[in-house]
Amino acid sequence: MTMTNKYARLFEPVKIGPVTARNRFYQVPHCNGMGHLRPKAEAAMRAMKAEGGWAVVSNQETEIHPSSDLSPAAEGRLWDARDIPALRLMTDAVHGKGALAAVELVHNGNHAPNLLTRAPLLAPSDMSIDSIQPKQARAMDKTDIRNFRKWHRDAALRARDAGFDIVYVYAGHRMTLTQHFLLPQMNNRTDEYGGSLENRARLMRELLEDTHDAVGDTCAVALRFAVDEMMGVDGMQAQEEGRAVVEMLAEIPDLWDVNVSDWSNDSATTRFEPDDGYQTPYVSFVKQMTTKPIVAVGRLTSPDMMLSLVNKGIVDFIGAARPSIADPFLPKKIEEGRIDEIRECIGCNICVSADNLGVPIRCTQNPTMGEEWRRGWHPELIATKGCEDEALVIGGGPAGLECAMQLSRRGYQVTLAEASDALGGRVTKESALHGLAAWQRVADNRIYNLQQPANVALFLNSKLSAADVVELTISNVFIATGATWRRDGVGRSNRQPLKINAGATVLTPDDIMAGIEPPKGRILIYDDDQIYIAGVLAQELAHKGYDVTFVTPASVVSPWTEVTLEQVRIQKALIELGVDIRTGRRLSGLSTDFCDTLCIYSDRAEKLPTDSTILVTERTRNTDLYDQLWADAPAGIKTLELIGDAAAPGLIADAVYAGHMAARNFEADPNLIVQQDYARELIDLTP
Amino acid sequence: MTMTNKYARLFEPVKIGPVTARNRFYQVPHCNGMGHLRPKAEAAMRAMKAEGGWAVVSNQETEIHPSSDLSPAAEGRLWDARDIPALRLMTDAVHGKGALAAVELVHNGNHAPNLLTRAPLLAPSDMSIDSIQPKQARAMDKTDIRNFRKWHRDAALRARDAGFDIVYVYAGHRMTLTQHFLLPQMNNRTDEYGGSLENRARLMRELLEDTHDAVGDTCAVALRFAVDEMMGVDGMQAQEEGRAVVEMLAEIPDLWDVNVSDWSNDSATTRFEPDDGYQTPYVSFVKQMTTKPIVAVGRLTSPDMMLSLVNKGIVDFIGAARPSIADPFLPKKIEEGRIDEIRECIGCNICVSADNLGVPIRCTQNPTMGEEWRRGWHPELIATKGCEDEALVIGGGPAGLECAMQLSRRGYQVTLAEASDALGGRVTKESALHGLAAWQRVADNRIYNLQQPANVALFLNSKLSAADVVELTISNVFIATGATWRRDGVGRSNRQPLKINAGATVLTPDDIMAGIEPPKGRILIYDDDQIYIAGVLAQELAHKGYDVTFVTPASVVSPWTEVTLEQVRIQKALIELGVDIRTGRRLSGLSTDFCDTLCIYSDRAEKLPTDSTILVTERTRNTDLYDQLWADAPAGIKTLELIGDAAAPGLIADAVYAGHMAARNFEADPNLIVQQDYARELIDLTP
Repeated sequence: MTMTNKYARLFEPVKIGPVTARNRFYQVPHCNGMGHLRPKAEAAMRAMKAEGGWAVVSNQETEIHPSSDLSPAAEGRLWDARDIPALRLMTDAVHGKGALAAVELVHNGNHAPNLLTRAPLLAPSDMSIDSIQPKQARAMDKTDIRNFRKWHRDAALRARDAGFDIVYVYAGHRMTLTQHFLLPQMNNRTDEYGGSLENRARLMRELLEDTHDAVGDTCAVALRFAVDEMMGVDGMQAQEEGRAVVEMLAEIPDLWDVNVSDWSNDSATTRFEPDDGYQTPYVSFVKQMTTKPIVAVGRLTSPDMMLSLVNKGIVDFIGAARPSIADPFLPKKIEEGRIDEIRECIGCNICVSADNLGVPIRCTQNPTMGEEWRRGWHPELIATKGCEDEALVIGGGPAGLECAMQLSRRGYQVTLAEASDALGGRVTKESALHGLAAWQRVADNRIYNLQQPANVALFLNSKLSAADVVELTISNVFIATGATWRRDGVGRSNRQPLKINAGATVLTPDDIMAGIEPPKGRILIYDDDQIYIAGVLAQELAHKGYDVTFVTPASVVSPWTEVTLEQVRIQKALIELGVDIRTGRRLSGLSTDFCDTLCIYSDRAEKLPTDSTILVTERTRNTDLYDQLWADAPAGIKTLELIGDAAAPGLIADAVYAGHMAARNFEADPNLIVQQDYARELIDLTP
Repeated sequence: MTMTNKYARLFEPVKIGPVTARNRFYQVPHCNGMGHLRPKAEAAMRAMKAEGGWAVVSNQETEIHPSSDLSPAAEGRLWDARDIPALRLMTDAVHGKGALAAVELVHNGNHAPNLLTRAPLLAPSDMSIDSIQPKQARAMDKTDIRNFRKWHRDAALRARDAGFDIVYVYAGHRMTLTQHFLLPQMNNRTDEYGGSLENRARLMRELLEDTHDAVGDTCAVALRFAVDEMMGVDGMQAQEEGRAVVEMLAEIPDLWDVNVSDWSNDSATTRFEPDDGYQTPYVSFVKQMTTKPIVAVGRLTSPDMMLSLVNKGIVDFIGAARPSIADPFLPKKIEEGRIDEIRECIGCNICVSADNLGVPIRCTQNPTMGEEWRRGWHPELIATKGCEDEALVIGGGPAGLECAMQLSRRGYQVTLAEASDALGGRVTKESALHGLAAWQRVADNRIYNLQQPANVALFLNSKLSAADVVELTISNVFIATGATWRRDGVGRSNRQPLKINAGATVLTPDDIMAGIEPPKGRILIYDDDQIYIAGVLAQELAHKGYDVTFVTPASVVSPWTEVTLEQVRIQKALIELGVDIRTGRRLSGLSTDFCDTLCIYSDRAEKLPTDSTILVTERTRNTDLYDQLWADAPAGIKTLELIGDAAAPGLIADAVYAGHMAARNFEADPNLIVQQDYARELIDLTP
């Protein structure tokens, strides 16, 4: 770093209790679907953040005891000494890249279903578990509290032995016992742990003191504290008890990691919270009340905003979960003045979805995320080319852009041909819809990177035929021609085409994204896809004044978006826009001015009036060009590969990944590819 | 076995291709939530079946390739040779107890989400994945089919190397590629793998031949085939193509394992399919068409029915999944004439729920199921008593009955005091409700076992006070006083009591189960519990002629029952009974003749008219007696333990487990108990 870097202040070392962070970049704890089920993958993934310049790299919530068992989820685990070696993999790897390692100890109280251990659930007061399981938690008695404190203390000692530099007390996301005690809605106790705020905060104070006492000589003790629940008077508020807690415990933790609760608020998507730094208004008071360093988050990707937050005395550390996933090398890029190269988080919560699904983390922007161990991928490094061949990439959507960009980074001469007049494909089309503007960053980053190097030729308005391809005499051809929404109603619930009356106005998401205006009046959106796009279209069209009916066989709008923490927000938005939501119904036919629907349970029929219908069911892969070339098998073509939605319709993240993989695997050792395809972590069979 | 055993025919050896089963008891493949994530637990659990007398013990669906990746579910895995040692644990353990071991190889096609491997999904034709994931499968080309056959063949070779005696080709449950090719709804191909039945069955035939060719000299090749989809003309029917398939492939497999599809039909609960042997009408034709042995299922627990099925020439083997879970020693008990000791499956699908949740299998009837490795529990053996003390069990519900029974088996002098005039507690009450009659088997089995031994004293109508307990001078007291449904509306969605107008008629599930008749007319059931009981009550009351409105914050009726495969059936039944279902609404107040409700998304209010309201929200633990004794701490009481719903309200299965554990752990080495509480399988960290 030169002294002239305007962001130099972000690279000052900061002391946290007995340890010192090399700069102000702090990867706060976040789940990654690896945890105790995939410790090698976790170590490699966290180490990449350390290599990318983060001064502190945290793991994820780490169960301290069998009564906080989150199985089958893959979180951290530190029940006893047998869990230390797996965590040691991470701390060694993180230390090896010069960062501090933090561990987020947790007891999840009535958020832990204990499905593996079958241990009784614990809570401040008797209450149901917070998920749809047939369980209720019992109010902890004094012995339970004493035990809990001992479990936490013992876990802190094990964390130290595992090599962690920072040990968390975790009171956030409405997921932890420590926070549950704090919340009047969850704590009806009449003893010294209930009632007044001082009483409700007693356990948190005790845990902080216990942890200091146990490991404070070598480890910093951090407190992750949700200052506001974003529920107004029904929950904790930053300017009320949130503030009072900070005041009360001001100097006790070595570091305040402050955010908002619950998880869907902390990890709000750009669709519903478009502004980066959206948590700042809630947490900006904290630094005035303590001399201890502060870390805060809020999808911070702009170096100028980061600098401003430090300069204004709002934070000491730039906290990040999602921005560090989208770009593990964000600090290094700022340090080296490569601001334009930052892959900015688009706030889509694909990362969150993977953890919710119990599988390794994925990222739309960063296709190497979660693949550090399994495929040995590095977000910034890729093998140089194996020969002097050229590559032709056909299609400028997310798969084509990523493939072309990575091939150019490998040193190949790359020609990218896009049929339309703009690059970006579905990314550009979808990001023009209501709430999805930030998604365009996926295309922007790649277009920027493709415009710089000399070995890339970009062609727009260049729809290629098989003959055109042969004529180009480029021997390696990657076809990323995407997929098209079906117009016949075939999808999950109807394997055969719908009966569609010739007079019916039928549209698809592609039509809307191409700018076609449905006839004014009533519009029916049929969502048999059940992922996200139908809900977005409903929002878009309702905003434009259409009278929208939303019909789906699902029981909620956009059920898949539960894993991105958006489902409730989407359904709320549609209701508030006056959309008529009809769940549990499938379409059985379309007439000129109505649709026939059937109840998925009873098969009872109902006709719903409409002037036009948007069918959101399934996509057809665009393989004509590929099929023609495959059939012709022209002599000059050595590689012919179908990638992205044209090969397997999925998320934008899947398309980017497919494009990346095609570029990585091109001319790679086939044995190595197979080894990566089969990589997984296995159970130790030692008796 | 003596020659006079009337069931001797069930104990004849039967040849299956190159191997011979010692008798006719055959544990068909079933999932158990262990698989590749818990291989030690799987081995111990399967070995218990072998010890219990089953001649064949199968594992569960076992992925043959990364393109059939069921992560995060814990199924079998045999991707490559690295998976052999884990499966070898099972085959060695099963062989050690004299049984044959079978493996169910699977490629799940578009049922596999490939969330870990990110491999493209495969199917006969292009189509969406069969779950709510943003994925579509591609139609397999000839190379894909060739590859699939090679994967299957290689997996068969690995299965043989792992020690399996029987290797399955699996075409059932609408979950496997082999079956998908067979179904016209899923196969639109125009090549030799599509069109005619012969073409659609080609892949199945090839797999059978490939498997014979690869391992047929030492292993039997079984075909698991769903003869009927129970969808009428919309699916495969036993008397149409189902029959034709059997005819076509009659002699090719060494064994026909026949059932119905999908899983919810094959594993129908007693609530919707009360008759044992319910699959017989569908599969009885098979044996007439082949000389090969047949195994079939249908919740077979009656030895007389088993004998009849063999004598009538319907099956050669008594197939079982759930009955072998409820009683792993079912064959031994029949063999030894201990028919009354059989723990009959109640058909509740708690076993299924565990697999769906991705955790080890549990069973309502058999609390040791899934605990063979973790806790070292044996369903038939328990340590004898550690001293000469007596035990007092207070409460004759599922926890109390199980605790008393196991303590008596350990040799303690047991006194069981029940406050009401009947044993069974909630089991007896709930089993009187619509569809749950079979659940009474949980109480019946235990009551039978408690009535036999001399060391048990049973007292009814014996509500004990703390003074009564002290007076009994029994030093070890187990309190299983259950839980009571709340009458104030507190539950998941309302942490504070509801506003209830004094004139409102408010009932609870306990009232209905106690025989209280609500006033005739409109009744509103508010289900904030969301497990099963509210749906049962709605069915019960609608059957009785009430005009039922069902209000729930959930988006479907009884959402938890999705894991028991019952949700669709429940909602269908309620709709057909005319129940007015209002989802996504929570109760905010009760007046004399209406309820106030709020939309969970928009908070919009709606008044719903009703004459009475049943609140199904949460339960209060009945701890008065325990609390009093705990406070008094009488000198004569050495052990005072609260168990079952009184300690942690849950399922009947949880109560039985708690009662069992209390009996096991009584006077056990505390270190051993801790060791069991913390037992789990860990990842191999070898680089």
